[in-house]
Amino acid sequence: MNKVRFGLVGGGFGALIGRVHKMAAELSGSAELVCGAFSRDPIQSKKAGVELFGIDPHRAYPDVETMCLMESAVDESKRAEVMIIATPNHSHFEIAKQCLNSGFHVVCDKPMTVSVNQAQTLAELVEVTGLSFGLTYNYTGYPMVRQARRMILDGQLGEIRRVSCEYLQGWLANDLSENKQAAWRTDPELAGPTGCFGDIGSHAENLVSYVSNLEMKEVCADLTRFVPGRRLDDDGTVLIRFRGGAKGYISASQIAVGRENDISLEIYGTKGSIEWKHSDPNSLVCRRNGEPLQIYRSGGPGEESVSRDHGLPAGHPEGFIEAFSEIYRNFFENIRESSEPTFPSVKDGVRGMRFLETVVTSSEEGSVWKSLEGEAT
Amino acid sequence: MNKVRFGLVGGGFGALIGRVHKMAAELSGSAELVCGAFSRDPIQSKKAGVELFGIDPHRAYPDVETMCLMESAVDESKRAEVMIIATPNHSHFEIAKQCLNSGFHVVCDKPMTVSVNQAQTLAELVEVTGLSFGLTYNYTGYPMVRQARRMILDGQLGEIRRVSCEYLQGWLANDLSENKQAAWRTDPELAGPTGCFGDIGSHAENLVSYVSNLEMKEVCADLTRFVPGRRLDDDGTVLIRFRGGAKGYISASQIAVGRENDISLEIYGTKGSIEWKHSDPNSLVCRRNGEPLQIYRSGGPGEESVSRDHGLPAGHPEGFIEAFSEIYRNFFENIRESSEPTFPSVKDGVRGMRFLETVVTSSEEGSVWKSLEGEAT
Amino acid sequence: MNKVRFGLVGGGFGALIGRVHKMAAELSGSAELVCGAFSRDPIQSKKAGVELFGIDPHRAYPDVETMCLMESAVDESKRAEVMIIATPNHSHFEIAKQCLNSGFHVVCDKPMTVSVNQAQTLAELVEVTGLSFGLTYNYTGYPMVRQARRMILDGQLGEIRRVSCEYLQGWLANDLSENKQAAWRTDPELAGPTGCFGDIGSHAENLVSYVSNLEMKEVCADLTRFVPGRRLDDDGTVLIRFRGGAKGYISASQIAVGRENDISLEIYGTKGSIEWKHSDPNSLVCRRNGEPLQIYRSGGPGEESVSRDHGLPAGHPEGFIEAFSEIYRNFFENIRESSEPTFPSVKDGVRGMRFLETVVTSSEEGSVWKSLEGEAT
Amino acid sequence: MNKVRFGLVGGGFGALIGRVHKMAAELSGSAELVCGAFSRDPIQSKKAGVELFGIDPHRAYPDVETMCLMESAVDESKRAEVMIIATPNHSHFEIAKQCLNSGFHVVCDKPMTVSVNQAQTLAELVEVTGLSFGLTYNYTGYPMVRQARRMILDGQLGEIRRVSCEYLQGWLANDLSENKQAAWRTDPELAGPTGCFGDIGSHAENLVSYVSNLEMKEVCADLTRFVPGRRLDDDGTVLIRFRGGAKGYISASQIAVGRENDISLEIYGTKGSIEWKHSDPNSLVCRRNGEPLQIYRSGGPGEESVSRDHGLPAGHPEGFIEAFSEIYRNFFENIRESSEPTFPSVKDGVRGMRFLETVVTSSEEGSVWKSLEGEAT
Repeated sequence: MNKVRFGLVGGGFGALIGRVHKMAAELSGSAELVCGAFSRDPIQSKKAGVELFGIDPHRAYPDVETMCLMESAVDESKRAEVMIIATPNHSHFEIAKQCLNSGFHVVCDKPMTVSVNQAQTLAELVEVTGLSFGLTYNYTGYPMVRQARRMILDGQLGEIRRVSCEYLQGWLANDLSENKQAAWRTDPELAGPTGCFGDIGSHAENLVSYVSNLEMKEVCADLTRFVPGRRLDDDGTVLIRFRGGAKGYISASQIAVGRENDISLEIYGTKGSIEWKHSDPNSLVCRRNGEPLQIYRSGGPGEESVSRDHGLPAGHPEGFIEAFSEIYRNFFENIRESSEPTFPSVKDGVRGMRFLETVVTSSEEGSVWKSLEGEAT
Repeated sequence: MNKVRFGLVGGGFGALIGRVHKMAAELSGSAELVCGAFSRDPIQSKKAGVELFGIDPHRAYPDVETMCLMESAVDESKRAEVMIIATPNHSHFEIAKQCLNSGFHVVCDKPMTVSVNQAQTLAELVEVTGLSFGLTYNYTGYPMVRQARRMILDGQLGEIRRVSCEYLQGWLANDLSENKQAAWRTDPELAGPTGCFGDIGSHAENLVSYVSNLEMKEVCADLTRFVPGRRLDDDGTVLIRFRGGAKGYISASQIAVGRENDISLEIYGTKGSIEWKHSDPNSLVCRRNGEPLQIYRSGGPGEESVSRDHGLPAGHPEGFIEAFSEIYRNFFENIRESSEPTFPSVKDGVRGMRFLETVVTSSEEGSVWKSLEGEAT
Repeated sequence: MNKVRFGLVGGGFGALIGRVHKMAAELSGSAELVCGAFSRDPIQSKKAGVELFGIDPHRAYPDVETMCLMESAVDESKRAEVMIIATPNHSHFEIAKQCLNSGFHVVCDKPMTVSVNQAQTLAELVEVTGLSFGLTYNYTGYPMVRQARRMILDGQLGEIRRVSCEYLQGWLANDLSENKQAAWRTDPELAGPTGCFGDIGSHAENLVSYVSNLEMKEVCADLTRFVPGRRLDDDGTVLIRFRGGAKGYISASQIAVGRENDISLEIYGTKGSIEWKHSDPNSLVCRRNGEPLQIYRSGGPGEESVSRDHGLPAGHPEGFIEAFSEIYRNFFENIRESSEPTFPSVKDGVRGMRFLETVVTSSEEGSVWKSLEGEAT
Repeated sequence: MNKVRFGLVGGGFGALIGRVHKMAAELSGSAELVCGAFSRDPIQSKKAGVELFGIDPHRAYPDVETMCLMESAVDESKRAEVMIIATPNHSHFEIAKQCLNSGFHVVCDKPMTVSVNQAQTLAELVEVTGLSFGLTYNYTGYPMVRQARRMILDGQLGEIRRVSCEYLQGWLANDLSENKQAAWRTDPELAGPTGCFGDIGSHAENLVSYVSNLEMKEVCADLTRFVPGRRLDDDGTVLIRFRGGAKGYISASQIAVGRENDISLEIYGTKGSIEWKHSDPNSLVCRRNGEPLQIYRSGGPGEESVSRDHGLPAGHPEGFIEAFSEIYRNFFENIRESSEPTFPSVKDGVRGMRFLETVVTSSEEGSVWKSLEGEAT
């Protein structure tokens, strides 16, 4: 199988997530970076291409438009097939549109856009072009997250009643406007209408939806800006009512001093419950009525995840990059072998944006219940 | 020092918490059970007095009224001094009133009453009689809970921004109406206007208030009855805004399958944060800006709790009974030696009832913000 | 049931374990302290009796001889029935002999004596007098330790192959000769031939024997005195071969900086394994071939311990005192109702002393294998 | 920087560790597989090269000899520079010799050889050729293992007294002779003189030596074959005396049912101690006299590891592959930029083989102390 060739938008000097995308894509074993538009500054883009990524300097482009144009002219056997978008939120829409219109598959960081309208437009474009579009809601790549979803789909927990998800970070507890990564995340021009919820609450929404397989019906939110001078929320809690009667909440914070990247999920059904924490990602706690607590382990007994063919035996800790890579592995297989897509798709993107917009509206109107079903019904 | 003599209301056959009160009071080393009204059935009361508690059968009374009357006539050197109330919530008010009016100090299980009005009436009665009144919000007795409070009062966490508390149990995930302890807790005639929140949400409210030293300003609640046929809430989440700008939530559930008695608390300030879990009660996790995470341990380095004179060295696990006993130790010292009261008082009881009533109202009105300050301002 | 009346030897000012014995005995709900010889100084003994324990000053005796003589003359309905010995190791033998010869049941702290000869003499005396003799190897009182033993007796782990037990403390990492409790433990005149192993290695031996139900065949030991000037071992590791082919080790240390009272046990059989740690005493980890890891919890599903009738529901942490109390509860029931003894007995004491003597000999001779079967065969 | 080109010996169908080497080497971001001898069967080797690794079929060689010969003839700009050896232990020596003699740098899996003599011969050859030789004692690549070493070198723990290391697996608890990976590990012709200790005890020795910076002086071992018919040890414990007075033990097992890859290390000094566990590899527990316990985290406050330039921020779990990759990253930098070597070297290999041979001898002679210093002095 020849490798999937990809280009990268973003990922220049000082960036983190671009490098993560590249590592994750390449760790899948079947892809290689061939081009990129790594910075809005043409000189920096070329420099990054050469020094950070070691690619052919002619394929380190000054901007996305040029990249799409030039790559389309590259011989088909060498041309980039997938464009990976790892830029601040506000630019996702235009870049993705351009890449799709130029005939490239797209993998985009989350949240997909900065509005529901944009998200719907992209969804239509994906539909029309027939290209593949993946979103790196990377937590869904952990084997134990997949195990949890499978157990719930199998009915092992019974009917779901209660769902809670927290995502706690502490790195924005103080004003960090000089920090490149903090700066754009707290700037409404670049991040969109929400800070903390756009950045990490969006992961929580996706994780809840993916694992529980439930649809949210309405939300009641209270978002806060704690750090003086900050222009977007840095903390918040959202009450949730799901279709079918389950309830729960999502709480996210970037001012939770000392917290790292602590996303955790608990789901309670009539027959059992699961608990997963990112700080111990290879374990899944399962509690069933009348039985001792069980802990499933990645690669261990009872684990049924398809990812096992690609993972390591139990006891070899799999981390952030491996989970991220799992998304890519499936995306590349989908392109190459038309295998069943399990990666987060444009539908997740539309649903995620509707969640974010509704949360912001609910909070702004004083924590009133707002329906998520809107036009859907 | 001669022992404090106490009577017990409740605690008959099939009861749990009455026995816990007795063990906790006696473990303090300075008290003994001398009388009781253990059951509403006079024969069962006598039987329990003899068989469960080994007291003089003449002092196992048929009801509280008789107990108050008869004990008042006992020689002062042998007379009960304190009455402990360990009955379902709805009866606390009348029993406490009777005991206070008869001149006995009172220790009452939580919640104090079934309404704010009752609570305020008791508060006035305590004021008038000058007797001591304690409430067994027992989680405040753990050394690491006290350590957390002390650290916050000292300003070690800076200004508090975010507070969250969960109390999860699973034992009421199914209909248990045949179970004596389940039956009264799910019956509005006996439990009052709230089930899960009255029973365990009340502990969460007290723990939050005790440790954070913050006052709640308003709440927005969504309570649920999940088990078919249940007449009171068995799950719920409450958004909270505190005076001074902090925010947070309390979530409680009795349908969280597999959960035991899992109350946990997290508080985040501008300089640091603490995390405490009942499942590991002798540890207190502390995170400070720019420092490795620390874990304080009961009896270990850096622990400053006054309870240390009475506790064991680090590494000797202290459990539920020891923490419960800590409340009694202080209560008895207060009676005997007029030492500073640190036990939860009638003020906690009034505040706790206001919280419960407001939560119920907010939820019934569709999760609207309700002020807790009411008449206070 | 009238309470068992007991006397206490030791437990004066500055002592820890005497107070623990009293709390534990009384928490059983069926015993009370009536007399004692709390100090070798008659004035201090009286003072402790009154101030620490609140007993009748006439029954706070100047020495054990007097106590035995005088108590024998007390009216039978008030006379002490059991004498609890909570003094340094070297004195256990004479005190126990005196108490048994005077007709009192005895509960003695571990290790039983300072030599195998003494231990055997006591065993014969117990046999001859027909009195009850208990040893407070208190870790056997934890519900999850009992659960582990039961599972192994049931064959749930298959044939046992590997057993390891560590007991780590750090409090003697420095010279503490001014500390009363450190002083006698590091003095061969008072502690006997071994320091760390006599004090805590003895607990490890008992825990291993109790839970595994295996007999040790031979040991190969390396003991060390790390702290300059110390006269007894403060650290050591012992290789063990069991009858039937299992192997393992016990390692103990009192210079393991930062460790509290960290005794832990792992047992591996052909079909499964268990892991228990004192730092999380209410959990028992169980691993079985081809199944997800399980955690049993005190009072939780699958727990079969008889102690449940007396314990609290799952999620109410039971600590050091509760486990200690479990030994007493059974001892008192045995005296009162001739119930099956499950408390550690004089046999445990003889076996324990043989272990300690053999470990010391093996280490002194340069870590050579020494048989534990000796005269037994 | 152009990528380092490497060849792989081993890693064919059914192998695990060959694939791991490739992932780890490539994750370093600066290397690519260009050739290999993947199987002793030429057809399988070619098949693996194409199907598993996607390399040029002409460079999937039938054996190492051919590979060395042919690669030497490849144009220098495309020729393999490093040969990675991921075959059963018995073949390491001949393969490594051949590769070194042909002018290739070598990275070899552990243990380096099956005898001290072989190890010394290789060490001399490395010296003579001036080529780089790395051993994948991969646990030394974890950031928190490096942090522990650094803290000890800095004297933060004071003088080291006690060191213990356990490596527990359960996968060989039953006879697995049909399993390819089990088969060679339990066959003395392929694995060398020791099974469990050669396979995982060797990692423990390296980890102890790397982190403690101590030299072992003598060992006293008891190895066991538990599974009927097994020809090599599957369990064992080794008492250790270090130069300078520290003591400790290494215990390893492959019959510890339910254990995964559970290597853990504890080191106690006069001033503090550290604890690291592979099951939570991104945490390092540190206990210091008179201070609350601390937990350092990969990428978190107080972490000083040089690997941070290459790692992710705290809270992004780094796993097995990342740690393995860290060895490669440094090896490749050493080759390209002559940077300071921190990877395990041929010296580790010689010391490791001496440890294994001495452990086997000590055990065979009945657990007698055997010096490790031998010819070294």
